[in-house]
Amino acid sequence: MTRCVLCGELDSGEYRCRCGGPLQLDHAVGSIVDESDVWSSHRDYFPYDVSKEESLGAGNTPLIKARGLSNRSGTNLYLKNETVNPTWSFKDRGTIMGVKRAMELGHERIGTVSTGNMAASVACYGAYNGLRTVVLVPGDISQGKLGQISIYGPEILGVHGDYGDLYYESLELDDIYFINSDDPYRIEGYKSIAFEIAQEIHATHVIIPTSSGGSFRGIVKGYEELLKNDIISHLPKFAAVQAQGCSPIKLAYEEDGQVKRWKDPNTVAKAISNPFPPSGDAVVNKLKELEGLCLAVDDHDILEAQISIARDGIYCQPASAVGVAAIPQLMDHIGRDSKVVSLITGSGMKVDVRSSNVDTVTLDGLRDRVSR
Amino acid sequence: MTRCVLCGELDSGEYRCRCGGPLQLDHAVGSIVDESDVWSSHRDYFPYDVSKEESLGAGNTPLIKARGLSNRSGTNLYLKNETVNPTWSFKDRGTIMGVKRAMELGHERIGTVSTGNMAASVACYGAYNGLRTVVLVPGDISQGKLGQISIYGPEILGVHGDYGDLYYESLELDDIYFINSDDPYRIEGYKSIAFEIAQEIHATHVIIPTSSGGSFRGIVKGYEELLKNDIISHLPKFAAVQAQGCSPIKLAYEEDGQVKRWKDPNTVAKAISNPFPPSGDAVVNKLKELEGLCLAVDDHDILEAQISIARDGIYCQPASAVGVAAIPQLMDHIGRDSKVVSLITGSGMKVDVRSSNVDTVTLDGLRDRVSR
Repeated sequence: MTRCVLCGELDSGEYRCRCGGPLQLDHAVGSIVDESDVWSSHRDYFPYDVSKEESLGAGNTPLIKARGLSNRSGTNLYLKNETVNPTWSFKDRGTIMGVKRAMELGHERIGTVSTGNMAASVACYGAYNGLRTVVLVPGDISQGKLGQISIYGPEILGVHGDYGDLYYESLELDDIYFINSDDPYRIEGYKSIAFEIAQEIHATHVIIPTSSGGSFRGIVKGYEELLKNDIISHLPKFAAVQAQGCSPIKLAYEEDGQVKRWKDPNTVAKAISNPFPPSGDAVVNKLKELEGLCLAVDDHDILEAQISIARDGIYCQPASAVGVAAIPQLMDHIGRDSKVVSLITGSGMKVDVRSSNVDTVTLDGLRDRVSR
Repeated sequence: MTRCVLCGELDSGEYRCRCGGPLQLDHAVGSIVDESDVWSSHRDYFPYDVSKEESLGAGNTPLIKARGLSNRSGTNLYLKNETVNPTWSFKDRGTIMGVKRAMELGHERIGTVSTGNMAASVACYGAYNGLRTVVLVPGDISQGKLGQISIYGPEILGVHGDYGDLYYESLELDDIYFINSDDPYRIEGYKSIAFEIAQEIHATHVIIPTSSGGSFRGIVKGYEELLKNDIISHLPKFAAVQAQGCSPIKLAYEEDGQVKRWKDPNTVAKAISNPFPPSGDAVVNKLKELEGLCLAVDDHDILEAQISIARDGIYCQPASAVGVAAIPQLMDHIGRDSKVVSLITGSGMKVDVRSSNVDTVTLDGLRDRVSR
């Protein structure tokens, strides 16, 4: 049973509420069992059981204290290393649940609108589960961007037209279950990040690079569920961090308004440059409710932070470095005894190894094309 | 205390025996404790204790049954996914122990001779531990190859002269502890692969992509130690697999002779194209002793296998695919009930994101240059 995050209505749509808001499952109730794998230990908290084989080993990632960054910032900074997931980003955690949902509904085809981490993840788990996978990309994409995605063998379809509209258009394609950024089951998978952190340390602050808003929603929901089940006694303070060159959530947060489409995104942090985040309003509301923080950082600081993180042992993509780049802005909130976790979302390695065949189609022709 | 693998002499050198043979530590004796981390659970088997922080989360990688490949080959094929280590290859396991050794000996500088996975790994752990790190590469290397390595901030030194001789030359540099491919402590770290597999399944066959021979030696030694300590009742059958375009160990194995330098290595499997493997003779001897298998596969089959592995959920580098590519040749030895493990050594993603400054020097001038 899903509920709209914005208006609260129950079961009002498959992907999004009739009011336009994103959906989520009600908070889970349950206990934690003693297993080393998060999918088993927190079984009660997920909508589906996940075997180690089905997860492909996703999750259960290292939480490592950043030696250099902790010393220099005078606090305890921990990096949650999501670059060691099966497709080298945190997206795998959500994809697992999305694929489970698609199979429960009887779909033989899944899809996603992405050119990056999410596309690779959906293509990988689609292949592993024997599902046909469609990845929708901009019609003018350079072939080089598709290296990692194409090896998993999905159908890659370039669509001419507004790429922002493509997200909404994709949800109308009945034949295919789309596991986009804020699919309610994808969000369920991201809760696992909160569960793992909470099992290791009592974090005082959790910093989350934020684009579409899906990972923010999932991690916060995970912590809220632990609180409701008396497994933790209070929530950490959450910080959503965006790149200055594309920070529509930060703007709406400051203006106390709704999220509006960001014109001309321009940042090195490509993986978090969604100009019109589908869960943007949900993130703003949650930040207000929990007195969280919303910050933006510039490209120079992002690239500096990327190097600092590497010297502490993780080569991450620029988008993953925004949390560490925001630490100077957080110093008013952080003390010597704080335990600050920054999510390192994906690997710095992405490559152009092979060319791929990309069919293209216009937005109007999309439905006909994919119904084959 | 180290012992020469070829002549058996004790403590006859720091890196290699006076006879020229590679060194190793005597077999460990001990028990296994119930911990989820291999470095803790098998503490008795390693020369150093390793905290989770010191490991950066290396090891404890997923062993996943390959659905498609198992079905098509009519056996039970498991992939040991080493692409999810901190620098996305199995090398991290050995680097941990090498760095520990260097620090115990009081070195403030470490080094390695590599342009690939090993260089990235040594540079990463060197940075994390505050050690100065020197990476020796060919003088004519393309800058693009150094993308991942350079972000960790090592000194990268291009050396003009025979790159094969550089390995031996590096061992003469007193100021720097070199953690090359068959450093005896590096080998100790690789034992962890055997320990993890043995905890999950009774493998009948373990297939190992083989170049310098270090990982083969470490994995076999790990299994031998489990046997000596009555933790397993018999060894699996080991298969060392090389690329046909550079298969000096395969040739020596077939000719019952010593390993000779391979002229003009030419294969897509760059990461296993060492033309004169320092542990080559040790691998051949061990294969003969244990009645193991030694195979070679061509580039076409390697690239096909790389795609098959991706469809089973892992995007690996071509060198990692040689084990799967060799399975048709293994069918005489494998039955329906066999449990075959193939080691997937490193990630398919490697990238040219940034240029790096490479100083160059001749082989003759190397000692002067690094003594600074």
